[in-house]
Amino acid sequence: MKGHWLLPESLADVLPAEARRIEELRRALLDLFRTYGFEMVAPPLVEYIDSLLSGSDSDLNLRTSKLVDQLSGRTLGVRADMTPQVSRIDAHLLNRDGVTRLCYCGPVLHAKPAGLLASRELLQIGAEIFGYAGLEADVEIVRLALESIRLAGIHNLRLDLCHAGLVRALIETDANALRRADEISTLLKDKDLPGIRALSKGIEAVALSTVQALEQLPLLYGGIDQIARARHVLPVLSGVTDALDTLESLLLQLNDPSVGLDLSDVGAYGYHSGVIFSAYAPGWHDALARGGRYDGVSLAFGRSRPATGFSLDLRKLAGGLAPARATNAIRAPAGSDLSLVQAMQDLRKSGEIVVQVFADELADHDEFVFDRELLNRNGQWAVEKV
Amino acid sequence: MKGHWLLPESLADVLPAEARRIEELRRALLDLFRTYGFEMVAPPLVEYIDSLLSGSDSDLNLRTSKLVDQLSGRTLGVRADMTPQVSRIDAHLLNRDGVTRLCYCGPVLHAKPAGLLASRELLQIGAEIFGYAGLEADVEIVRLALESIRLAGIHNLRLDLCHAGLVRALIETDANALRRADEISTLLKDKDLPGIRALSKGIEAVALSTVQALEQLPLLYGGIDQIARARHVLPVLSGVTDALDTLESLLLQLNDPSVGLDLSDVGAYGYHSGVIFSAYAPGWHDALARGGRYDGVSLAFGRSRPATGFSLDLRKLAGGLAPARATNAIRAPAGSDLSLVQAMQDLRKSGEIVVQVFADELADHDEFVFDRELLNRNGQWAVEKV
Repeated sequence: MKGHWLLPESLADVLPAEARRIEELRRALLDLFRTYGFEMVAPPLVEYIDSLLSGSDSDLNLRTSKLVDQLSGRTLGVRADMTPQVSRIDAHLLNRDGVTRLCYCGPVLHAKPAGLLASRELLQIGAEIFGYAGLEADVEIVRLALESIRLAGIHNLRLDLCHAGLVRALIETDANALRRADEISTLLKDKDLPGIRALSKGIEAVALSTVQALEQLPLLYGGIDQIARARHVLPVLSGVTDALDTLESLLLQLNDPSVGLDLSDVGAYGYHSGVIFSAYAPGWHDALARGGRYDGVSLAFGRSRPATGFSLDLRKLAGGLAPARATNAIRAPAGSDLSLVQAMQDLRKSGEIVVQVFADELADHDEFVFDRELLNRNGQWAVEKV
Repeated sequence: MKGHWLLPESLADVLPAEARRIEELRRALLDLFRTYGFEMVAPPLVEYIDSLLSGSDSDLNLRTSKLVDQLSGRTLGVRADMTPQVSRIDAHLLNRDGVTRLCYCGPVLHAKPAGLLASRELLQIGAEIFGYAGLEADVEIVRLALESIRLAGIHNLRLDLCHAGLVRALIETDANALRRADEISTLLKDKDLPGIRALSKGIEAVALSTVQALEQLPLLYGGIDQIARARHVLPVLSGVTDALDTLESLLLQLNDPSVGLDLSDVGAYGYHSGVIFSAYAPGWHDALARGGRYDGVSLAFGRSRPATGFSLDLRKLAGGLAPARATNAIRAPAGSDLSLVQAMQDLRKSGEIVVQVFADELADHDEFVFDRELLNRNGQWAVEKV
């Protein structure tokens, strides 16, 4: 019996005040997505592993917990990311030709925590636009991400843009660099300059010119002026120019002082295809929200549909905010006579919280403060201040 | 690539109109629970199997999918029922002495579907009262269950009460019957009279007097008049009398024509301890909601706390209801000039759904009907009927 209440590492119960905060954020964000015309979908918690990992980056496989399906004997995965599932729904279930806006919110499980302080269970909420390759869709997604974070009361945020086409253009003519694309993406994301320089040495050495171009990316961090610097220091390749043009146009259209550039925040190689972004705020050790374009993913489901979107972990978001404040409530006496029951029902219908005290009860709450009491005054039930 | 979009048996995506309906029900029920003073908690999706199954009925083990924890090497279970988790939270995490009301909503996974038409993924929502053994808590839980189902628009429901003490009293002096308690519970729930009669034959035969008493239970079905009949036809045992007294008192206090008795709906032997109930409505092949008292469960977590509660599957509930109706929305033109962006933001803040059309877009929606359009009239943005 000992220790039966101990939870596995990096998993936790969410207690009342925090659960309420998460629920409030969940509703506010889903309502916000709805005002933009995003329709809600709910993919299953587990799927066949080959479907769950279709079109995804290699990292997702390592993050996905596997179990055996008792009905088919095949391997199921517990979803570690809902985005590929929503792509599948767009590609096959809805099978629409036009632009489709979908949103979702549900728990995802990571086989291993993403970092030292990270939880293995996330409450992922996100919004995706399918079927439109133009920049307007990226603008809408970035705006929605910014508004989502601000809706949570966080105003000193920073959103960094990057473009998956930059690294692709810099390495696609270098066979060794291409083979080491995942490693290069990780080095860039970590802004590991010594590691990047070391790429030019040893086996499968990357060409010195490629390494010199890659070395520039971590230094290209800041406002719109970094676009001009990038045009100056990066090799003149059509892929580089296209990416910089797109980023410049996006920055101008967004016209938001919280939005900047981080040209080494390159996303997942082979998964992301265009504009990518991460949002940060003081109080959170890692990105609060991530998003970007992944036009190639739906191909794995047999249909090519442009796609861009973003998602965030509501638990992580709530973790850095103050818990929900206690709410005022009414204490009602014990008893089951009809007039009391009716008085309590009427108050509850009007939105009041009415907690009935059982005989000799000691009611324990974190969430409620009893500032009023339901009392019988000459046969009439009345609410009075405590 | 073929079939990558096929889902495992008894698992499904929830598409927009249905997802919206489920979300509306989720909010309405959680808000209702809150007006009664229930505080929300969120236990983890997976736990060590010995914790997850503590104090549960044997059936839960078979319903729970297992996987190996990559951090500890121990076996984890994906929860198949949130009630034992919430008991654990009450017993250990909150560790309060007084009455505690907790509610929860989250997905649970069944290793095998519970029936031919059942899904393996449920969205379980429920409310539990810990720390109070008196009938007032049962009254509150049954009332909350009734109100929850009526809030979903279902008014021709029937809620059947039973008491776990009835079977216990009838079989506790018969060693063979006690050994076959799970089998007897199943036979009673199925109202399998030939099966019950056959208990008196073969090995581990149950005494004829016990069988004759058990045979009466499936026939005790109906209104409060069945209490008098039960007192007449069942053996005079203190456990039987106590159970019938409790049920009679509950029926009188509830005073609701939708509430009746089904004395063979006996719950899980060894798990339930007092009043138990199931709610049914035309259009659902199985119980819509189940609940009851399970005072012994928290003992497995080292603390004895009386407990009663109920839960239901929101997906199943929504499945029998009409999907959410399409909502009126405003179509906005393509473009990113600030006055347009501002006009859209203002409308969205006021609660309107504003979908921006991208260049040459063919927007596809199930959920929205565009009855208005945002148009530029002499430099001013105005909403006009389509």
